[in-house]
Amino acid sequence: MNGKIIGGTSLPHIPWQDKPAGCRDVLWRYTENPVIRRDAVPCANSIFNSAAVPFGDGFAGVFRVDDRARNMQLHAGFSKDGIHWDIQPERIEFVRNDPEIQPFQYGYDPRVCFIEDRYYVTWCNALDWKPTIGMAYTFDFRTFYQTENAFLPFNRNGVMFPRKINGMYMMLSRPSDSGHTPFGDIFLSQSPDLTFWGKHRHVMSPQAPWESTKIGAGPVPIETERGWLLFYHGVLTSCNGFVYSFSAVLLDRDEPWKVLRRGREYLLSPQRDYECVGDVPNVVFPCAALTDADTGRIAIYYGCADTCTSLCFTTVDDVLAWLDESGIAPR
Amino acid sequence: MNGKIIGGTSLPHIPWQDKPAGCRDVLWRYTENPVIRRDAVPCANSIFNSAAVPFGDGFAGVFRVDDRARNMQLHAGFSKDGIHWDIQPERIEFVRNDPEIQPFQYGYDPRVCFIEDRYYVTWCNALDWKPTIGMAYTFDFRTFYQTENAFLPFNRNGVMFPRKINGMYMMLSRPSDSGHTPFGDIFLSQSPDLTFWGKHRHVMSPQAPWESTKIGAGPVPIETERGWLLFYHGVLTSCNGFVYSFSAVLLDRDEPWKVLRRGREYLLSPQRDYECVGDVPNVVFPCAALTDADTGRIAIYYGCADTCTSLCFTTVDDVLAWLDESGIAPR
Repeated sequence: MNGKIIGGTSLPHIPWQDKPAGCRDVLWRYTENPVIRRDAVPCANSIFNSAAVPFGDGFAGVFRVDDRARNMQLHAGFSKDGIHWDIQPERIEFVRNDPEIQPFQYGYDPRVCFIEDRYYVTWCNALDWKPTIGMAYTFDFRTFYQTENAFLPFNRNGVMFPRKINGMYMMLSRPSDSGHTPFGDIFLSQSPDLTFWGKHRHVMSPQAPWESTKIGAGPVPIETERGWLLFYHGVLTSCNGFVYSFSAVLLDRDEPWKVLRRGREYLLSPQRDYECVGDVPNVVFPCAALTDADTGRIAIYYGCADTCTSLCFTTVDDVLAWLDESGIAPR
Repeated sequence: MNGKIIGGTSLPHIPWQDKPAGCRDVLWRYTENPVIRRDAVPCANSIFNSAAVPFGDGFAGVFRVDDRARNMQLHAGFSKDGIHWDIQPERIEFVRNDPEIQPFQYGYDPRVCFIEDRYYVTWCNALDWKPTIGMAYTFDFRTFYQTENAFLPFNRNGVMFPRKINGMYMMLSRPSDSGHTPFGDIFLSQSPDLTFWGKHRHVMSPQAPWESTKIGAGPVPIETERGWLLFYHGVLTSCNGFVYSFSAVLLDRDEPWKVLRRGREYLLSPQRDYECVGDVPNVVFPCAALTDADTGRIAIYYGCADTCTSLCFTTVDDVLAWLDESGIAPR
């Protein structure tokens, strides 16, 4: 392979469809999209921007479920094949062992990252109704222990790296403001203990038109011999609002705030009906990727139009080759 | 005294004028204001929002000096009496022993806090031209060692507490956005080592009309038997822009994110010519307070109209009595 996957696991049962004949794209959609419909649990207005990971002999996940009062909630779910999901009808009730940790007010856009011995959940949490990065961990996707928020408001899209790097836990995030933020760069922060964070580094700013308003990390980065492969969303502001697409970037393995190679164009933009039509038109928003370390296959879960959840596929080799051929090497 | 000062030092040479006969205000201005004029160093367009502390047998400080290209710079300065200042004509060149710490781009609104054995400077620093809380320390106000930024962007008004509390260094700050932020609460963050920060707590939100747009910590909090006395600025948005005033609040000594008593009104608002007229009309902005532990006298340095620097006076007893009589006890 162009970039051997490091630290990954064999995942022969990864959701997968071969690339359609004649397809010139680097990413291709699952033919039966969306895989999770907006009403897959009774209380739901919509289920999108959600995270799935290998778990046991199947998969588990944390799902953004907006209810019919439009409260933003997190629900756990399980699947044998990564395509058909059993999402819990009740929201996650986080265990808080410290009364200073604020009770859950809302949560959205979760990511799940397995580190060492447990699954860490990061999400956009409310601190006095101001968004910042909430954190919790679970061993079984039944009991979730909420820990300290990583950062001060205002922040969104907190995405952890799956191992310590140079002795530090690391998290990407997108500092924001209190509303539908019209700016946003990706930053990296470091922590010795997952409670206190510092040594903040700037990673990348919006650059091309498709991402000119703001960018944010998507799924947990995939470690390859050549660097950390990160899918990230970018936003263009049209005359009728934000348009969310996504692309990929390769980050340095030891100093992952350094960009090695960056996509010049988006890899996927909202073009299908289920991506263009819904509560928020024209949004594709990746929050999780499964990877098979043997074949380099990648299955990306992405939210569609803030309404439902879909799958698309690619391989590590395909993305790295694309970055090599058409990507940008920063100064 | 109503609230005995804890951990303070005798400061018999504190700048001081007695309260004028007939004055009904809790704070009163120095009659010779402004004490630092806009052109007190040759390169300056303006000198304001600056910090002074006791140093040797006199005083030292870090000053916001905007130059005539309107670059925002920090300059050190010295004074025998706290009123007549010798401000260095050249800006502070921070020593950076770690190349990952970004070179100085701009800095403004410094605070200086003596902790343990040295003077810490916090200020609004640029990280890739985005504002956040920069940090440095000095022993002599000649050499300044820059350390890691405390937080991710976007943040302003980082103000340290002068000692560890429950084993933690603590800092107040005002998370913001990328521009002339139209919102802002005071938060508190904790650190075991001044590099990594966490356990963020919400302290207070805007409440009264005079502060309805945003609030931020001012000088380093003054420890009294009854709690931490904090002066803080608040902003009202008029039809012609922001109006900065300031007031006081008493915070819990052990859990200083808990408000004990809060001013219902401002203590000082822009009313004199030098506060109303200048580069930014209608701004009084406190960044430092000297305190005499023997008498409870307080001398506050405050920026005026983003142009010059003035002094006003009060006592710990006066402010605590005012908070007792007319302040708000939060729920």
